Amino acid sequence: MRIYLAGPDVFLPDAERIAEAKKAICAAHGAEGVFPTDLHPDQAEDDARPRWYSIYLRNEAHMRGCDAVVANLTPFRGPSADVGTVFELGFMRALGRVLAGYSNVAAPFLARSLATPGVERGADGRWRDADGLALEDFGLTDNLMIDGGIRAAGGVLVVRDAPPGAMWSDLSAFADCVAALTRPAPPPPAATRSPG
Amino acid sequence: MRIYLAGPDVFLPDAERIAEAKKAICAAHGAEGVFPTDLHPDQAEDDARPRWYSIYLRNEAHMRGCDAVVANLTPFRGPSADVGTVFELGFMRALGRVLAGYSNVAAPFLARSLATPGVERGADGRWRDADGLALEDFGLTDNLMIDGGIRAAGGVLVVRDAPPGAMWSDLSAFADCVAALTRPAPPPPAATRSPG
Repeated sequence: MRIYLAGPDVFLPDAERIAEAKKAICAAHGAEGVFPTDLHPDQAEDDARPRWYSIYLRNEAHMRGCDAVVANLTPFRGPSADVGTVFELGFMRALGRVLAGYSNVAAPFLARSLATPGVERGADGRWRDADGLALEDFGLTDNLMIDGGIRAAGGVLVVRDAPPGAMWSDLSAFADCVAALTRPAPPPPAATRSPG
Repeated sequence: MRIYLAGPDVFLPDAERIAEAKKAICAAHGAEGVFPTDLHPDQAEDDARPRWYSIYLRNEAHMRGCDAVVANLTPFRGPSADVGTVFELGFMRALGRVLAGYSNVAAPFLARSLATPGVERGADGRWRDADGLALEDFGLTDNLMIDGGIRAAGGVLVVRDAPPGAMWSDLSAFADCVAALTRPAPPPPAATRSPG
């Protein structure tokens, strides 16, 4: 199984170390981890495209070549996950791939969103932000498209608080996702043998 | 052409009014607008699923039935677009549909992100947030997966400041997207007529 390693991990100062650690966890489960910054065989080194667009095309090519994605959905500069990662989750869902996600922050979406300046509860009981836009209140990890996409794909969503200071380095929830994706399927019910 | 009307507009207090206005713009261009909250013929009214998951499945069914998406990518409670909308953009890209997006805020991603508490420029010239994660600095509208997905699909991205107070109500950039998607293709080069 080839697993695309989606997440804002690419923005970390030690992204290469995280990439290697994630790949080692995949390998220990008999899978191959593909990090977004890995070279892709179809990509010319010296292509004339803008660098950002080459990165986009490489990420898309990596996704098409993977069987599954494990997305780091830890809240990123606000109440929700990194939008680049979420684009990739939607992309992989539409391709029919296996989805898994994890967050190193246990508080659900609504609780996190209450920290947004201007959020208030209206007379109708709904929470709204300073512009009047309602906050989702379903007890989910993030926007319902994220939780829903993973559920629709039969995937797993692992959510718990990382130890203090380890929000971007703790890989135990990631490892749980990889273990779930690579777990052997239960044996089929014993077949009735035909005689002879 | 059936156009899926993605955006955080569903959270607005006057979401129904915005939905009707967007559909009227689509109709004026000979297209049909599909708003996420529209009923879907395949969806039982009284299904036993949790409400949020029924909403997810309905949105996915709507997307599969549309030829294109116009996504409202106006920054949402932070520097980036709404994650639910971005999931849908990635989903439609993987389905090979036509993509368009608009933002009613003209400032590019990096400029908007500098408002995030703790962002500083390091000795290496890179902007990093309080956790040390780098900010993309490509002059784009948002994360490169968003700009890149639209470009890869041959789509349009319309970005400009809405009038003061009209960030969530101004539909002129939306209308430009619909006009671009529904513009007749230029006629093919004149064929050489075979005699007779």
